[in-house]
Amino acid sequence: MTKGRLEAFSDGVLAIIITIMVLELKVPHGDDFESLRPLIPIFLSYVLSFIYLAIYWNNHHHLMQAVKQVNGRILWANVHLLFWLSLIPFVTAWMGENHFATRPVALYGLALLCPAIAYYILTRALLTHHGEDSDLAKALGKDVKGKVSVVIYASAIPLAFVHPMIACALYVLVAIIWLIPDRRIERTLGEHHQE
Amino acid sequence: MTKGRLEAFSDGVLAIIITIMVLELKVPHGDDFESLRPLIPIFLSYVLSFIYLAIYWNNHHHLMQAVKQVNGRILWANVHLLFWLSLIPFVTAWMGENHFATRPVALYGLALLCPAIAYYILTRALLTHHGEDSDLAKALGKDVKGKVSVVIYASAIPLAFVHPMIACALYVLVAIIWLIPDRRIERTLGEHHQE
Amino acid sequence: MTKGRLEAFSDGVLAIIITIMVLELKVPHGDDFESLRPLIPIFLSYVLSFIYLAIYWNNHHHLMQAVKQVNGRILWANVHLLFWLSLIPFVTAWMGENHFATRPVALYGLALLCPAIAYYILTRALLTHHGEDSDLAKALGKDVKGKVSVVIYASAIPLAFVHPMIACALYVLVAIIWLIPDRRIERTLGEHHQE
Amino acid sequence: MTKGRLEAFSDGVLAIIITIMVLELKVPHGDDFESLRPLIPIFLSYVLSFIYLAIYWNNHHHLMQAVKQVNGRILWANVHLLFWLSLIPFVTAWMGENHFATRPVALYGLALLCPAIAYYILTRALLTHHGEDSDLAKALGKDVKGKVSVVIYASAIPLAFVHPMIACALYVLVAIIWLIPDRRIERTLGEHHQE
Repeated sequence: MTKGRLEAFSDGVLAIIITIMVLELKVPHGDDFESLRPLIPIFLSYVLSFIYLAIYWNNHHHLMQAVKQVNGRILWANVHLLFWLSLIPFVTAWMGENHFATRPVALYGLALLCPAIAYYILTRALLTHHGEDSDLAKALGKDVKGKVSVVIYASAIPLAFVHPMIACALYVLVAIIWLIPDRRIERTLGEHHQE
Repeated sequence: MTKGRLEAFSDGVLAIIITIMVLELKVPHGDDFESLRPLIPIFLSYVLSFIYLAIYWNNHHHLMQAVKQVNGRILWANVHLLFWLSLIPFVTAWMGENHFATRPVALYGLALLCPAIAYYILTRALLTHHGEDSDLAKALGKDVKGKVSVVIYASAIPLAFVHPMIACALYVLVAIIWLIPDRRIERTLGEHHQE
Repeated sequence: MTKGRLEAFSDGVLAIIITIMVLELKVPHGDDFESLRPLIPIFLSYVLSFIYLAIYWNNHHHLMQAVKQVNGRILWANVHLLFWLSLIPFVTAWMGENHFATRPVALYGLALLCPAIAYYILTRALLTHHGEDSDLAKALGKDVKGKVSVVIYASAIPLAFVHPMIACALYVLVAIIWLIPDRRIERTLGEHHQE
Repeated sequence: MTKGRLEAFSDGVLAIIITIMVLELKVPHGDDFESLRPLIPIFLSYVLSFIYLAIYWNNHHHLMQAVKQVNGRILWANVHLLFWLSLIPFVTAWMGENHFATRPVALYGLALLCPAIAYYILTRALLTHHGEDSDLAKALGKDVKGKVSVVIYASAIPLAFVHPMIACALYVLVAIIWLIPDRRIERTLGEHHQE
């Protein structure tokens, strides 16, 4: 079975999830900048979730590049991932509208933990299908970042009850882990090759 | 006529239908877990419909893999299927917001019955175009699961008036029929081949 | 310039337009069938517009099949068509919520007339680019149905002020013209070939 | 890495952004044309933003045609562009509902300036990857229109506080710059070639 429609359907669902979140930015009635102030926490939670969903799309893109074919189990592992991602707009809005209060922030952590586990299940289904010696296995490597992310999310949930800002800092940290270090590694590798 | 745009349009419509259902999970005003409790039935109906739409996408994907070309009648049979699927968010929300009351549960059954019939019509249009000896005909086989599903939906609608939980149990049963046994059959076939 | 992204973008926009209309079917508070009754005119206007948008997608699909390449003018003619189609959910909802009253029905006619003209402009842009001897020119033929539709829409707008049901009957008539006769022509042609 | 999914994801996000704006055209309760009058400024701001998003899609389409392959940096530069574009429905609605008042008009200018800068960053990332001698570099040229647009947006923001109509006139001017002159240049070039 070819992977084309799995990619197209995933792109469609991710594009909609990432875009409908902006509908939570309800237009205020006043025309002064003061009337925009209550939207700041909602906007910040939107930015965070936008980055997370973009990271998932990016990783999904990289992952699928190494995939040759798919089977029924892989299709369902992918749908399972999309299900958890589809809940992110809800938890994003709940967190933003409650100004990063304890419980919404903790639930946000759970809503990040579930797709992270679902993504891991998807990679296992792909590895089983392609074999441990495949290009896919090499491309995935030990997936340190994936495992570290799961540990940080799982820690952030109880820590939200100590102070929600600790959990938020951890969510930002995971986003930075995915956004920044790859380039540093690429650069290090690049310098290595030039020696 | 090639099947590319039929697939792309169907993927788009299905991705949107599956995703806009989450908009019914209205963000509560309170920041405690108690305020999430009224959302539980809405969430459960969302999960059920998400699985159903994923099954349709999955089956559509498998079906179209065996399709070589399409004609006007097939395009319209496909649009007819998408029309009935587009009503699922509405019945899902009505059922969830009324805590699985009799009439919404019965209407939900009707809303599952109609696309099941439309899917059957689509397979007939495809068979007429490809011939009874085609790969498509072999891939479809007797379509026992499709026919059983129609019978169960048709039974569930009157049974909802006995007790809505009977109908709900039948809806879950059909979802399980589509999710589980294929793998058992695949495994059985796999073992068979190894003998 | 290739036509791939023009098709993909059009499919995306049409899929969204056709699907967001269903959001106008607001979930009623009651759980009896009586509470669904006020939705009947909204549902009927939804069905009509769903069919119209499906006809546009279908025609767009057929049209683009004969297209070899596109230029800037064609891209803009296509965007122009999508703009008018994007207004259909609004006029559909206004007509449905006002139970097919005179002015909403007249505006609905205008909202059908504008994309019909835009579609004609798109075909002219394509013909200019491909030449009058192209396969596209042959596939389009005299486009009798397109021209008849424009005349009927233009007549329906003033006739809505005589009685809105006259205009509605004309809108249904145009939908039937696009849905039915092609098959009869195909069948006639098919019989002709067999002689 | 191939560019297919970057295009598909961008098409999806742009199609959704351009279409959800129409949801701000809230259906009025009355059935007379008078009840549509309050929607006129919202409609005008919709038309302006629709044209802007169509210009972005068009330019993105042209840009990507000359692109051979993409890397991680380009993926993120593209996501960055989509982020700013995703805010356009919000500022469009705020501007429309406040009848083009000073502060909403100024913020609209900022919401046009940010994606213009993001687009420039994307072109730089693409040029770095493809080289200054590539077809892409030739296709981009000096990008005079891109630079002029940034200057006009940056000027329009303070000028909105003099009078919002000055800023609006400048937004319309930029749209015209992108819509009209290319054809004139193309025609001029065309005449030149015939000499």
